[in-house]
Amino acid sequence: MLNFGVIGFGYWGPNIVRNLISVKDAEIKMICDVNPDIITRIKDLYPHHSVTSDYLDIINSPDIDVVAIVTPVSTHYALAKAALQAGKHIFIEKPFTSNSKEAQELIDIAKKNKVLIMVDHTFIFTGAVRKIKELIDSNELGDLYYYDSTRVSLGLFQQDTNVIWDLAPHDLAIIDYIIKNKPQALIAQGVDHIGSGHENIAYITLYYDNSLIVHINVNWLSPVKIRTTLIGGQKKMLVWDDLKADEKIKIYDRGVNVESKEAINKLLVDYRSGDMWSPRVDYQEALKTELQYFIDCIKTKTTPINDGQSGLRVVKMLEMANESLKNEGRLIKFKDNESSMSSSHDSSVLSLT
Amino acid sequence: MLNFGVIGFGYWGPNIVRNLISVKDAEIKMICDVNPDIITRIKDLYPHHSVTSDYLDIINSPDIDVVAIVTPVSTHYALAKAALQAGKHIFIEKPFTSNSKEAQELIDIAKKNKVLIMVDHTFIFTGAVRKIKELIDSNELGDLYYYDSTRVSLGLFQQDTNVIWDLAPHDLAIIDYIIKNKPQALIAQGVDHIGSGHENIAYITLYYDNSLIVHINVNWLSPVKIRTTLIGGQKKMLVWDDLKADEKIKIYDRGVNVESKEAINKLLVDYRSGDMWSPRVDYQEALKTELQYFIDCIKTKTTPINDGQSGLRVVKMLEMANESLKNEGRLIKFKDNESSMSSSHDSSVLSLT
Amino acid sequence: MLNFGVIGFGYWGPNIVRNLISVKDAEIKMICDVNPDIITRIKDLYPHHSVTSDYLDIINSPDIDVVAIVTPVSTHYALAKAALQAGKHIFIEKPFTSNSKEAQELIDIAKKNKVLIMVDHTFIFTGAVRKIKELIDSNELGDLYYYDSTRVSLGLFQQDTNVIWDLAPHDLAIIDYIIKNKPQALIAQGVDHIGSGHENIAYITLYYDNSLIVHINVNWLSPVKIRTTLIGGQKKMLVWDDLKADEKIKIYDRGVNVESKEAINKLLVDYRSGDMWSPRVDYQEALKTELQYFIDCIKTKTTPINDGQSGLRVVKMLEMANESLKNEGRLIKFKDNESSMSSSHDSSVLSLT
Amino acid sequence: MLNFGVIGFGYWGPNIVRNLISVKDAEIKMICDVNPDIITRIKDLYPHHSVTSDYLDIINSPDIDVVAIVTPVSTHYALAKAALQAGKHIFIEKPFTSNSKEAQELIDIAKKNKVLIMVDHTFIFTGAVRKIKELIDSNELGDLYYYDSTRVSLGLFQQDTNVIWDLAPHDLAIIDYIIKNKPQALIAQGVDHIGSGHENIAYITLYYDNSLIVHINVNWLSPVKIRTTLIGGQKKMLVWDDLKADEKIKIYDRGVNVESKEAINKLLVDYRSGDMWSPRVDYQEALKTELQYFIDCIKTKTTPINDGQSGLRVVKMLEMANESLKNEGRLIKFKDNESSMSSSHDSSVLSLT
Repeated sequence: MLNFGVIGFGYWGPNIVRNLISVKDAEIKMICDVNPDIITRIKDLYPHHSVTSDYLDIINSPDIDVVAIVTPVSTHYALAKAALQAGKHIFIEKPFTSNSKEAQELIDIAKKNKVLIMVDHTFIFTGAVRKIKELIDSNELGDLYYYDSTRVSLGLFQQDTNVIWDLAPHDLAIIDYIIKNKPQALIAQGVDHIGSGHENIAYITLYYDNSLIVHINVNWLSPVKIRTTLIGGQKKMLVWDDLKADEKIKIYDRGVNVESKEAINKLLVDYRSGDMWSPRVDYQEALKTELQYFIDCIKTKTTPINDGQSGLRVVKMLEMANESLKNEGRLIKFKDNESSMSSSHDSSVLSLT
Repeated sequence: MLNFGVIGFGYWGPNIVRNLISVKDAEIKMICDVNPDIITRIKDLYPHHSVTSDYLDIINSPDIDVVAIVTPVSTHYALAKAALQAGKHIFIEKPFTSNSKEAQELIDIAKKNKVLIMVDHTFIFTGAVRKIKELIDSNELGDLYYYDSTRVSLGLFQQDTNVIWDLAPHDLAIIDYIIKNKPQALIAQGVDHIGSGHENIAYITLYYDNSLIVHINVNWLSPVKIRTTLIGGQKKMLVWDDLKADEKIKIYDRGVNVESKEAINKLLVDYRSGDMWSPRVDYQEALKTELQYFIDCIKTKTTPINDGQSGLRVVKMLEMANESLKNEGRLIKFKDNESSMSSSHDSSVLSLT
Repeated sequence: MLNFGVIGFGYWGPNIVRNLISVKDAEIKMICDVNPDIITRIKDLYPHHSVTSDYLDIINSPDIDVVAIVTPVSTHYALAKAALQAGKHIFIEKPFTSNSKEAQELIDIAKKNKVLIMVDHTFIFTGAVRKIKELIDSNELGDLYYYDSTRVSLGLFQQDTNVIWDLAPHDLAIIDYIIKNKPQALIAQGVDHIGSGHENIAYITLYYDNSLIVHINVNWLSPVKIRTTLIGGQKKMLVWDDLKADEKIKIYDRGVNVESKEAINKLLVDYRSGDMWSPRVDYQEALKTELQYFIDCIKTKTTPINDGQSGLRVVKMLEMANESLKNEGRLIKFKDNESSMSSSHDSSVLSLT
Repeated sequence: MLNFGVIGFGYWGPNIVRNLISVKDAEIKMICDVNPDIITRIKDLYPHHSVTSDYLDIINSPDIDVVAIVTPVSTHYALAKAALQAGKHIFIEKPFTSNSKEAQELIDIAKKNKVLIMVDHTFIFTGAVRKIKELIDSNELGDLYYYDSTRVSLGLFQQDTNVIWDLAPHDLAIIDYIIKNKPQALIAQGVDHIGSGHENIAYITLYYDNSLIVHINVNWLSPVKIRTTLIGGQKKMLVWDDLKADEKIKIYDRGVNVESKEAINKLLVDYRSGDMWSPRVDYQEALKTELQYFIDCIKTKTTPINDGQSGLRVVKMLEMANESLKNEGRLIKFKDNESSMSSSHDSSVLSLT
């Protein structure tokens, strides 16, 4: 049985608590929030849980094994550092930290204290993304050509960050999970329409060595909500519409067969347009799967796929996106020696499916 | 009555001929194509029209007032030059020419010979685009924030050009028509997956002085066909789905009201989410409207909105897109003295609606 | 403050409890269920509520003012009778009872004991249905021509009832609410495919005096879920798609204008096809609105619109549907003297909007 | 080479002519219409075809082998009779005739004169319907449970017929083609809203011996166009949306497995909800396929699947629908001795695929 302390009960915290109650081998020992109204609400909802306004009560509690940090990103570093130094495992919201230096430091502390870090990349635990991963790993799609995501809606403007740091981490965590290669370079463009100093519309493009291209369209000012991703492979292509209640993923037996350079010049490109197939995907709540997986990782001392390194890789990309934004969309190259950018895909992921 | 000669009867030519037959005050005198099979087909379809394999028969015919040039872009300059020098008006396919130098030269020749050029920017004659223009001009949407177009499908790979020159002219002609300001700079990114030397996936971003941003997503390798454009304004926003048989345009009374800089910092952004409204749009075939308009322009000696200047502005943007592509998506600035970039919006457009 | 006792915590009961907690001036005194596992779950979820397996504990409790009966229809009569005779108001699941005789008897007991009955016709408290009611009452649609509902999905087969008693009460309660006239006759058809003795596919048609026709398509064996209703009026028509997250209601300025009998014979029917408009609808949870409304009715001694009479009218229609089913879809006429069939529309409904 | 005469060039006639030009071994000898304006249009479109206003010119022409009758149903009998008696094969619009007596008489005349009748049941030659037929014949769907069609739009009111005779023939011809059993009984209900004497909204239900049920919803007053059919089988179910440009047919691996009567009583019904699959369907124009097939039938002296018998079966159902409409939706039983109702499915259909 693992004992949890939860810091932060704002927008996402309640989901963490609700799911921790439903997973096996976990118990919530304490919930913390600084807002008095929220503390009252916690007490109403969970009268038999102890509540505090001082996160140190959680950090210093000898009974607590794991700390869930569900607070704004600006507070992640300090809270995580304290928890890790106190020898506690942490489950922390995305993005992992405000910059890669902090992320690296937390990784080092965790290593020194032999505790685990899991960054809450919830999407990689959805049935849809796991099915996509499966299709790519089994080479069903063939070599990947592109990943094109549109993630727009009339979104809540953030006070201290731009639309990239708010919405893009979803896609960045997903590509870090499903694409084995590492990106070579990145371009980000965007605009701030309301003078908040933070872009509310932005576009990110990632280049890979094998002409794979990733494009992410994020927008806080769209009249309609769109969550559609096109993934093109040499053999097959798919469309993932996350807003569909059913048939979230459609796989198309479509593409072009290119015989030879001559063929191309002679425009002898042969088109395939066959059946479409929509596999059934698992609809269990991703957050529950993720928390259960973290508990298993701790018990079996396995590094989670969404560990600090994965969190760092995402933060690194966000950092570079901001750098490109500040330089009129200049191309930013990933340094080759950045081992941190090589995504680790240990087999523990298999324990999921 | 204006007499037409049509050069080129490949993919688009038959539509030009079919519509010329149905418009008022126009008559087709001769149709030209170099392909013998096509010549046979023309004779079957239009036994009472004279056909030729030599375009000079059209250029040199004293009876012909207007030449419709419906051939690959690489041939546009030579054919257009010959026709204009022969004192004939031209209706020419988009993109106008292979480069802006050619476009400028044709414009000068036309001016010298007092004949008109119409570049076939068909989309600006559709009920949908004209309705959008109407909404923008009447300030229904308020100041424009963004124009975001996705124009993807499993497209025919072109031998001599990339996906931008194939698909983007539609959007570039539309923004040239509906947006009064002129773009300040442009970035284009793309990838060639089949080694044809031409990008089959590309993204263009255009920056304007007032933080208006235009983004165009073109792709020849999409499993599904998408023709969706989001247009966001300070007052209202709209979604244009050109594949819908009905309800092509939906206008949303949605957005954010920003009181002040303080408001933003305090996250006091006020959201509006009201009704949606889908106006009825005119469904007449755009090409017919366009050809009738050109005939009227010739008779009334009016410069068409889609004249050589408009064609040049589009070619210029395509040129800069290629330049950016060749330089890893470097930002290309429009030179301020380029008067050619200031889109002309003479009132003749009103004669349309 | 009104004290509630809730009987039944199966599929719907938990929603009643959750919403009672969130409404004003209500308190849950006791929850009852006969299933031991469910009792355990109630205790986990609501440790500070008293729980019982004997409904008499609720009936006999002097503290309890209102009893919510959330059990299978076969048990409604006995439980409701006991509660009403004990002088308690009741909130009871739809369908009200297994037959109209029981319904009438409960209405009489309630009247004698001066307590209120509210039948849980949740749908009439949704933003969508209230908007439709508004449009009809304001004559926006003109005289009603038809109401055509498709309510199909891969549904849970019921042991003791057919698909009509399971799904049609939603539509019957809605038309009882939005249509002022009373139906004149009814036909029901259906088939039982799995030999359960209960139809799993059925169609109901209701005839009204002014050529208004209502058709309801219910199906437990559809591969896809559909919740679409077309409502046609002489002036306008609407489509209500309850599965849409947004734009649930679309109003079309379409129809035919018929000048005269001659016009028809000469086929001079004039078609209108104008704009479409999708009004914003209130998205508050209907059940919460309904429970709050019942509490207000009790406090102000107002008869709810969804009272016993409305429940009886729905049960009557279900009864007649079964009669028609048993007689090869024979037309069943409503007896004119059935005052019970004239739907009451007291102004208390206005207190909703 | 077969020589055709075409009588009627109104709404559908031009499609017949256009497709006859493109099929093999057919030649149009003469086109007839009584309307002078239409005759002018024919001459413009087909200057090298002879045209007449007197159908007898076609009937009496010794050169003509086949007569296509594309006129209002009220004229079918007289024109068809004249053509058949003149020893010509006929291709005739649906519905075949105004009543079954006429249909039977035409069948007898054709038999006597050894000529063929093909009734234009175009839909059974579409890729979609042929794919559905294939799935049913290969028992992919298992025993059929239901066929539920919604065929509504803002339709042209007909002067001399109701919405059933206008729209239902499509579905009746389809079920006659895909369902081997014969219907046992029928119910039709409908309403006339504009006082034309003809129903503009109607519902037909057909009962089969094995609890298969067919339901058809036709409506001339719908604000939106819907062409959706649900087909449920014991093993699989499908949705056919004929308005989709792509993915017209979706097959769902869904249903219920019923072990035993006990299982049902114990509600132990086991649900399947697996993958969805959308097969590619042939998009060739159905009318062209149909005409080519008729030409082949004539040359090979094969009875077409859509022969006079099939036309008669559809007319019979339409007749009974009207009878039921006139009797308040009374159930009309098919007489068992009506051999005409047993649909013939000779293998010639295979020559299609």
